[in-house]
Amino acid sequence: MNSFEPRDPDFESRVRASFARQDFMVTLGAEMVHLAPGEVDLAADFKESLRQQHGFFHAGVTSSIADSAAGYAALSLFPPGFGVLTSEFKINLLNPAMGPRLIAKGRVLKPGKLLCVCRSDVYGGAECATHVATGLFTMVAREGLDD
Amino acid sequence: MNSFEPRDPDFESRVRASFARQDFMVTLGAEMVHLAPGEVDLAADFKESLRQQHGFFHAGVTSSIADSAAGYAALSLFPPGFGVLTSEFKINLLNPAMGPRLIAKGRVLKPGKLLCVCRSDVYGGAECATHVATGLFTMVAREGLDD
Amino acid sequence: MNSFEPRDPDFESRVRASFARQDFMVTLGAEMVHLAPGEVDLAADFKESLRQQHGFFHAGVTSSIADSAAGYAALSLFPPGFGVLTSEFKINLLNPAMGPRLIAKGRVLKPGKLLCVCRSDVYGGAECATHVATGLFTMVAREGLDD
Amino acid sequence: MNSFEPRDPDFESRVRASFARQDFMVTLGAEMVHLAPGEVDLAADFKESLRQQHGFFHAGVTSSIADSAAGYAALSLFPPGFGVLTSEFKINLLNPAMGPRLIAKGRVLKPGKLLCVCRSDVYGGAECATHVATGLFTMVAREGLDD
Repeated sequence: MNSFEPRDPDFESRVRASFARQDFMVTLGAEMVHLAPGEVDLAADFKESLRQQHGFFHAGVTSSIADSAAGYAALSLFPPGFGVLTSEFKINLLNPAMGPRLIAKGRVLKPGKLLCVCRSDVYGGAECATHVATGLFTMVAREGLDD
Repeated sequence: MNSFEPRDPDFESRVRASFARQDFMVTLGAEMVHLAPGEVDLAADFKESLRQQHGFFHAGVTSSIADSAAGYAALSLFPPGFGVLTSEFKINLLNPAMGPRLIAKGRVLKPGKLLCVCRSDVYGGAECATHVATGLFTMVAREGLDD
Repeated sequence: MNSFEPRDPDFESRVRASFARQDFMVTLGAEMVHLAPGEVDLAADFKESLRQQHGFFHAGVTSSIADSAAGYAALSLFPPGFGVLTSEFKINLLNPAMGPRLIAKGRVLKPGKLLCVCRSDVYGGAECATHVATGLFTMVAREGLDD
Repeated sequence: MNSFEPRDPDFESRVRASFARQDFMVTLGAEMVHLAPGEVDLAADFKESLRQQHGFFHAGVTSSIADSAAGYAALSLFPPGFGVLTSEFKINLLNPAMGPRLIAKGRVLKPGKLLCVCRSDVYGGAECATHVATGLFTMVAREGLDD
């Protein structure tokens, strides 16, 4: 795996403060369970309000936590004064997203001044041993965006 | 645009019943505002619980309603006894997803016995005139899946 | 459809000169059959050297002309002194890519200073009436890149 | 990494015979340099006929060998009598695709009876140490398709 040098020594407090402002992550019950330069894991427990029609986590939940994990992995490497926006992503849903818990592991593949490409893998099922989804994300660093 | 012949004369009640079972769409406040063979529009009003860190709709909300709109557009063309699962999707976020309302327009591009390719476009901002996102979705028809 | 104002009055000669330097397009036998601000169509005739194992155009040919059509649609809107690079793309292959000819229609969906999102649709079969593929592309404007 | 059990004891000769029929891979000068169940590597040397306008490998070349590597990784796990078609793919171009050689490593992530999800990573530059591209591919198993 890659190892990255953060350009902001305060990256940790900045990432956590921004994540705390994502009301939608509160709605999903997501919490940040790992943070390192270029790496963020988010986890969410199963609840009825997140279900699709067959009783699994909705694909939108899976992709939402995958997206935020990737976005904060990217933000952890941005210099101070730059915020993060998702430009695009693609996700393959490999197995039904079953509880009791989903964990999304966002990792930076290619950091850049303007664009940052990340991968995010989501695991679920018993002991989070099932590979539920894998995705690729392009994140944009936007100067002056308050993150 | 394409015009499609549904293989299930009861497609409308089947699609609406399945949508009503997606608890996550209730969580998002999404409602089905258009349904025709191969076409579904979903709309969701802005609320604080759907925000990302800059105050816009979270990209996960945008992609979730885009995904469900595409999935139900596909399901409307499936024969009785087949359910729908998202296999994969890709979405480009074109403009910040601002309220007061998002509308996702799911359309079938290529129906098939096993796979159905759809496009979904999301609009927001004043009078829903801003093109917020565009995505491509592959939906799978699964026999015996209760939809 | 959108209509765009080019930022370079000489966009046409610049796009054609750059296309002429893409040796790989010569290898494919691709020619530019339409050029307007934000719009480029490329066409390629079937030949044995472009086949996959079942005798159709290889998916790589379909995606290559879709990519170049999208890239030159983007370049047509860039200011002088900026070159174009593909950042990422996604393509769905809707029908077998049969000859006698493929035509790829690249269109700008969202122009931007740094990023330009495009769609590209490829048609083939008799009278190019079959929708062979549809894709979404993110193009980057890079200053100082000689295009 | 995953390890897979092939369902066709003759998978190796079948994969190599199909690859030999892909005229487009001959056009690119691609050769198969690794084959194991669920794993195929393809390599192509730089030549002028594969260039884009700045002198690098064209993105279409990168994605073409990534696609064939993924497709043959999938085919290696199919039962006899099933051929392979690319349903869709997405690729992020991480660094300029420089020679002297590109190598694409296709790996099966999720095998299935009908769909097979693969990843393909492409490396180039000195000693193929630069990560040029990463992509996700959905391959379809089609019965009766002669591969």
